[in-house]
Amino acid sequence: MNILIKNVLAVLPENGKVAESEKDIVKQVNLCIHDQRIIAVGDVPADFKADKVIDGAGKLAIPGLINCHTHSYMAFMRNVADDLSFMDWLFGKIDPLEQKMTDEDAYWGACLAITEMMKSGTTCFNDMQMNIHQTTRAVRESGMRASICRGLVGSGNDEGGQRRLKEAFEEKEAAADCDRLTFMLGPHAPYTCDDAYMRIVSERAKKEHMGIHVHLSESESEIAQIKEKYGCSPIEMAEKNGLFDVNCIAAHCVQITDSDIEILKKHNVNVVTNPASNMKLGNGFAPVKKLIDAGVNVCLGTDGAASNNSLNMFHEMSLLALIHKGVYRNPECISAQETFRIATINGAKALGLEKEIGSLEVGKKADIVLLDLNNPSLMPRNNLVAGLSYSANGSEVDTVIIDGKLTMEGRKLLTMDEQKIYARVNGIIERMNAE
Amino acid sequence: MNILIKNVLAVLPENGKVAESEKDIVKQVNLCIHDQRIIAVGDVPADFKADKVIDGAGKLAIPGLINCHTHSYMAFMRNVADDLSFMDWLFGKIDPLEQKMTDEDAYWGACLAITEMMKSGTTCFNDMQMNIHQTTRAVRESGMRASICRGLVGSGNDEGGQRRLKEAFEEKEAAADCDRLTFMLGPHAPYTCDDAYMRIVSERAKKEHMGIHVHLSESESEIAQIKEKYGCSPIEMAEKNGLFDVNCIAAHCVQITDSDIEILKKHNVNVVTNPASNMKLGNGFAPVKKLIDAGVNVCLGTDGAASNNSLNMFHEMSLLALIHKGVYRNPECISAQETFRIATINGAKALGLEKEIGSLEVGKKADIVLLDLNNPSLMPRNNLVAGLSYSANGSEVDTVIIDGKLTMEGRKLLTMDEQKIYARVNGIIERMNAE
Repeated sequence: MNILIKNVLAVLPENGKVAESEKDIVKQVNLCIHDQRIIAVGDVPADFKADKVIDGAGKLAIPGLINCHTHSYMAFMRNVADDLSFMDWLFGKIDPLEQKMTDEDAYWGACLAITEMMKSGTTCFNDMQMNIHQTTRAVRESGMRASICRGLVGSGNDEGGQRRLKEAFEEKEAAADCDRLTFMLGPHAPYTCDDAYMRIVSERAKKEHMGIHVHLSESESEIAQIKEKYGCSPIEMAEKNGLFDVNCIAAHCVQITDSDIEILKKHNVNVVTNPASNMKLGNGFAPVKKLIDAGVNVCLGTDGAASNNSLNMFHEMSLLALIHKGVYRNPECISAQETFRIATINGAKALGLEKEIGSLEVGKKADIVLLDLNNPSLMPRNNLVAGLSYSANGSEVDTVIIDGKLTMEGRKLLTMDEQKIYARVNGIIERMNAE
Repeated sequence: MNILIKNVLAVLPENGKVAESEKDIVKQVNLCIHDQRIIAVGDVPADFKADKVIDGAGKLAIPGLINCHTHSYMAFMRNVADDLSFMDWLFGKIDPLEQKMTDEDAYWGACLAITEMMKSGTTCFNDMQMNIHQTTRAVRESGMRASICRGLVGSGNDEGGQRRLKEAFEEKEAAADCDRLTFMLGPHAPYTCDDAYMRIVSERAKKEHMGIHVHLSESESEIAQIKEKYGCSPIEMAEKNGLFDVNCIAAHCVQITDSDIEILKKHNVNVVTNPASNMKLGNGFAPVKKLIDAGVNVCLGTDGAASNNSLNMFHEMSLLALIHKGVYRNPECISAQETFRIATINGAKALGLEKEIGSLEVGKKADIVLLDLNNPSLMPRNNLVAGLSYSANGSEVDTVIIDGKLTMEGRKLLTMDEQKIYARVNGIIERMNAE
């Protein structure tokens, strides 16, 4: 299948050097797609015959956004628990619902999450949870791209920890035929996995050449707990247990010291910042500018819908670009362009997929989002990269292509039945409330 | 003209006491509108004959949002100046464009601002600027509601200050026939109006029974400047010169002390917080929780599009609800319901219009926004007030009624030509860049 996106403004990669102005990276081009990949950016090759032509007039093409930390199934728990302390949130509201959750509930939750993400320009997400088969099922059907990990909790060699690890590998094997699915190992956090279990997981990751996705240093209470148990910081605990010996994505990293930052940089750990969730749960602001200045690869995530309460990466980009200017009292801190990089190519790097996705380049997978510029929030046509980071809200997303296939056109999903998904998630909450 | 909004979920007023749960205020009702006003909420009166029936199924009715601080004409300067220090922003980018601005440019800027606001659920805005006639012209044509003030700058009895004040009253008189337009006096800020001019303005406001709209304590440099010139804080300078002797709306109030807060409360000054702008320009976070705890009426504004870069009150609500939880490390700080109150009824109070707008109540003007709930970010149907403050992005706004008249239906503006506005603002920027 050949797709031609004709005469479209596109945000092109900076190619190593930081672009000085929007004009250096926003250009009028043709994008040619053959099967899964982008085969031309610029002129249309003489021998290219398009099966489908998309008129790019009035549109802006960007690489699909990469949501580097979420828990997709939680989408059905959106807006059930807000403005509460973390303990009331988790034990009073979220846990009781999770106890009632069936496999089908997890599936429809993941479908809702994918619907929301696709409609707001995300083409790849990095997911951690228990019931991963339901997410891989939703990913397969929807045409989405995802990196999946089974949330791992355990102490030493206990049965539960071993079972969870086994489930992780079973799902990975079962999904080997779908190259939109990749897998990492997901030791949940230093307060749910002990030293010995962390080592088992990291050894296994090394042996299988897999990356690790972990929550680190999210809250003050976590810091206190790990300090008391191990006499060190969560980052130090993770380092000691070999989590950083493989490609590691550390979510949150809010409560970290300069010495933690040195450790993260030394091992090239990728940090996913989750601004909305960190504020919502009262954890504060991650020191993102310090991390960037230290040379750490920072990427962006929404966290689950129960602690955000949205999976919209445009909202998250605007938070990232704004809040640190407030925290550091510095209007030059984390520019629109840096923000866009963090939401795209940095996410691809974190997932070990920087040769495949994260930018509009010849040879990469065609994960492309078209925004409709005919929208007051993007008018007039000034700096469009600033528009993406500050002004867009995701509703401008018109067309989505993932892995070379159209999954949304004119805001209509082509791979999923939106109305059925809404009916099902409403049914889940009604049933749970009645139980 | 009679409009019936049939069987719609609506966010109803708390009526003085704080609602304990969403179920206390979100109810299924009929909304009956006769001419400008809401005449029934609940059952349809037996003698009510609707000229127009709107099916409320799948919709949520809310009072229109009130944007309490903006500079509408600046919309054409969206995304022209970002990630810059305040001085580079103002003198390097914004000022040179303002120098080139014609009356027509100001008009089309205001039209773009109104388009964006209406499409994201704002039905009333409080505006400060130079060329107010162009804004009142756009407000009249669009069916929008606005409180307008001519930005006043002056020293003592100087000619410029007197001329600006004269223009303010000329426009107020010329607009006397349009009751969607109200007027305040707008002394710009303590660093652009001296003691004597501030007194002239506040005396005039008292005499004419008008309110005052002023910028106060926005940046650290303002604090230093006023301290050096007058030996006091901007809040104290304003108090001393009588600005608080009338109904006053003070924008920003970021850099304020506990003693400033006492002064604000003592005089029942209304504070407009502008989270995006305060972060964007590196000024930090206003102490909103302290202000609320002290009993100050806090309302919400976007500021101009050049320092935001959006006029979307849903975006601003999410910032308000999130950032203070991060700043105070307290997830219970500024709830979704408080946020919604701040964006609606508190704004009406600040404008002295709480008997006319700000809630869905019998007798009030019909300023009503219908959101389409058939949207992933509002699914499933859990707490819809949390949905409004955290999950909605404004694109869910489907229908807008202002002053009893339909101004948007199915996201199509009925009073303005969107495409013409976009063409004109693009033309302005092209011309200015070429000049």
